[in-house]
Amino acid sequence: MDPCDLTAAEAAAKLHDGSLTAEALTRACLARCAAREPEVKAFSFLDPDLAIANARRVDKRYDKGVLHGLPVGVKDMIDACDMPTSHNSPIYEGLRQGRDAACVAVARGEGAVIFGKTDTVEFAAGGRRALTRNPHDLTRTPGGSSSGSAAAVAAGMIPLAFGTQTGGSLIRPASFCGVFGMKPTHGVVNNEGAKRYSHTLDTIGWYGRSVADLRLVAEAFRLFGLDAPGAAPAGPRIGLCRGPNWALASTESQAALLLAGERLQAAGIAVEEVTLPATFGEVTEGQRQIAFGEGRGAFLGEYLNAHALLHQDFRDRVENSGGITAASLRAAYDHAAECRKLWDALFPPYDGILTVAAVGEAPVGRQDTGDHVFNAMWTLLHVPCIGMPCTRGPHGAPVGVQVIGPRFGDAALLDIAARIAPIVGG
Amino acid sequence: MDPCDLTAAEAAAKLHDGSLTAEALTRACLARCAAREPEVKAFSFLDPDLAIANARRVDKRYDKGVLHGLPVGVKDMIDACDMPTSHNSPIYEGLRQGRDAACVAVARGEGAVIFGKTDTVEFAAGGRRALTRNPHDLTRTPGGSSSGSAAAVAAGMIPLAFGTQTGGSLIRPASFCGVFGMKPTHGVVNNEGAKRYSHTLDTIGWYGRSVADLRLVAEAFRLFGLDAPGAAPAGPRIGLCRGPNWALASTESQAALLLAGERLQAAGIAVEEVTLPATFGEVTEGQRQIAFGEGRGAFLGEYLNAHALLHQDFRDRVENSGGITAASLRAAYDHAAECRKLWDALFPPYDGILTVAAVGEAPVGRQDTGDHVFNAMWTLLHVPCIGMPCTRGPHGAPVGVQVIGPRFGDAALLDIAARIAPIVGG
Repeated sequence: MDPCDLTAAEAAAKLHDGSLTAEALTRACLARCAAREPEVKAFSFLDPDLAIANARRVDKRYDKGVLHGLPVGVKDMIDACDMPTSHNSPIYEGLRQGRDAACVAVARGEGAVIFGKTDTVEFAAGGRRALTRNPHDLTRTPGGSSSGSAAAVAAGMIPLAFGTQTGGSLIRPASFCGVFGMKPTHGVVNNEGAKRYSHTLDTIGWYGRSVADLRLVAEAFRLFGLDAPGAAPAGPRIGLCRGPNWALASTESQAALLLAGERLQAAGIAVEEVTLPATFGEVTEGQRQIAFGEGRGAFLGEYLNAHALLHQDFRDRVENSGGITAASLRAAYDHAAECRKLWDALFPPYDGILTVAAVGEAPVGRQDTGDHVFNAMWTLLHVPCIGMPCTRGPHGAPVGVQVIGPRFGDAALLDIAARIAPIVGG
Repeated sequence: MDPCDLTAAEAAAKLHDGSLTAEALTRACLARCAAREPEVKAFSFLDPDLAIANARRVDKRYDKGVLHGLPVGVKDMIDACDMPTSHNSPIYEGLRQGRDAACVAVARGEGAVIFGKTDTVEFAAGGRRALTRNPHDLTRTPGGSSSGSAAAVAAGMIPLAFGTQTGGSLIRPASFCGVFGMKPTHGVVNNEGAKRYSHTLDTIGWYGRSVADLRLVAEAFRLFGLDAPGAAPAGPRIGLCRGPNWALASTESQAALLLAGERLQAAGIAVEEVTLPATFGEVTEGQRQIAFGEGRGAFLGEYLNAHALLHQDFRDRVENSGGITAASLRAAYDHAAECRKLWDALFPPYDGILTVAAVGEAPVGRQDTGDHVFNAMWTLLHVPCIGMPCTRGPHGAPVGVQVIGPRFGDAALLDIAARIAPIVGG
């Protein structure tokens, strides 16, 4: 078997027992890149010599961390000290930072091979799109803004990659690309060294090809609760939540959620419909208020120093074209705080709540990276979300679902996700 | 008059009318540094040639921003693209970053002369102290963690400096050093490019020698409401709040607050005692929970990659020696959200609420930078705070007070502060 077809968890086992080296795995990934990258265009920076040098450095280590020898892609608005950080912005072409972003430092510390930078929507927020295509159907977007990260993992070019989510930039591409994605509880992974758009919303996450892959990265970050993980409950109860935006889901995404519920019930797992209080209907708009309100300050430096090179999307944020006021922003913060408490109170009885991950199949073309309407609410609520494949849409493109837990319930959510993912995936 | 004895606002007027150049002001500041820096030790990096080059670049600009020609010091855990960022950590000695932190980019974009890096407590959080001494009494601390920034402004070496506050790192040094300091509403100034300790608490702020100085920087950041500033109310109402930690204040700090109230009343301004609901008594502990809980992830990269060079303070955070749990952290977040609403509801009737800024005079020595017990609550509540000088303690060292507003009330709070500061200062 080609090592780059192993999941991260499978490869980790071989890397730990010595039957696979970081260099061998990295070379296999580079070979896959040679075959797929010309059409997928997942990487904004990839230097094979550097990737191999990083792998050799890992192979020399005395200790083996939880990510030992695993090639990891880094979304190109997150700093790595040995690669440029372009942010997909003409302002930062070739920018070199002197140190790793916090998440990259942790991955490197745990033995990961920092492999390359993956293409992103400009500043992970708007403006220019990535060049990346969906590996399952090159006419379609992989989603965004974590375009290259999701596509590279889906194409088997790397086993793991970092992305970020401010609206729906992690979980939506996971659905479009048919991979697993995790957005952990907001704030548990330090996002220093990543471009700031909204401090309330920006969340570092990651992609893999199994729940076990996602868990490896979660272990590297020592997510709360992981120190003493409980076994998956003998009889889990899964909530199935259409949510306030159900009418905006395509037929295939509605069908995917219902199918996931049916499959779980058929496997003997208790599934119950959950209806959220009406007040949750306002959270999606609250996310927009906060993204635009906080975005007002986020791009001010570029606005002042490189105005001509800054996309109008960001000038609009700085100029507050959305008309966000102090009062509307305060209201959005306070309402979100209230809904966080209401959401957390659902656990128990539920061990995880399944819901829609994206509007439908990935849109055709490169410009429309999809709508974050099924993700924005969960981002603002700060809750952990795990995206997993479920089915295919009418055009054969992947359609996933996501399972969501309470704040800081990341470890238990990984347990539940591991239990249900093989069933949800059919 | 020596130009470096001008306040920032006074100098700005001369820089705008052309009677003073950025280079002349920078040279005056460098001369003051030559006299005072050997004993004050405010700077961790100061290259006179670079400061002059930055000033000449500003003197060549066609446009004049709101900070045109003003030398600004940068706390040494905030990146500047032309200077090292040491974080006062042996891990990062000589670290060079490729771009400015967001706040530095905004200052540069508005014409500031980035002057030098100011010494800080390690990572603005714990561990190693700055070498800086209090300019008013060299046997005393200037406070921390924004030690060098407060001291450099107090010594007249620079008119403005950036600091940060996670507990009390801005307002406490302002009180100890007898200068003005502003901690704006959390999140309105992007803190990208500053070391992350706690995303919920970390706040960029600044020092000056008048409220008008603070306003200049606030204008650069386009704080909410500043677009159409209201005139200071004809008859402002000031709350005077002893707060839940009053018993921990020294005699001199209690006296300062009461004196400020008396002076305002004598000047015809309405002052009323405000008693906060009992639940505010828990906010200080909530700040500790959140700082330690979020600190768990903040230093993980350094813990893994440079363990021997990381102070035990930070290893303790990573190892969660404080025993923070998911439940305690959730409770702290939710309680803070509730208190934010209660606090904001006090405005109106009050236009600003005066309270204690620090326990008392600056402690003697370098190791004890003071207690943040009179600041931690306001940091967690995300509210804007302006520290201002009031009186002197029994040893002749400065004792300040602070005036606080509702979230996003930064512009109105600056108006009130400008009105009351000359009266409070006697």
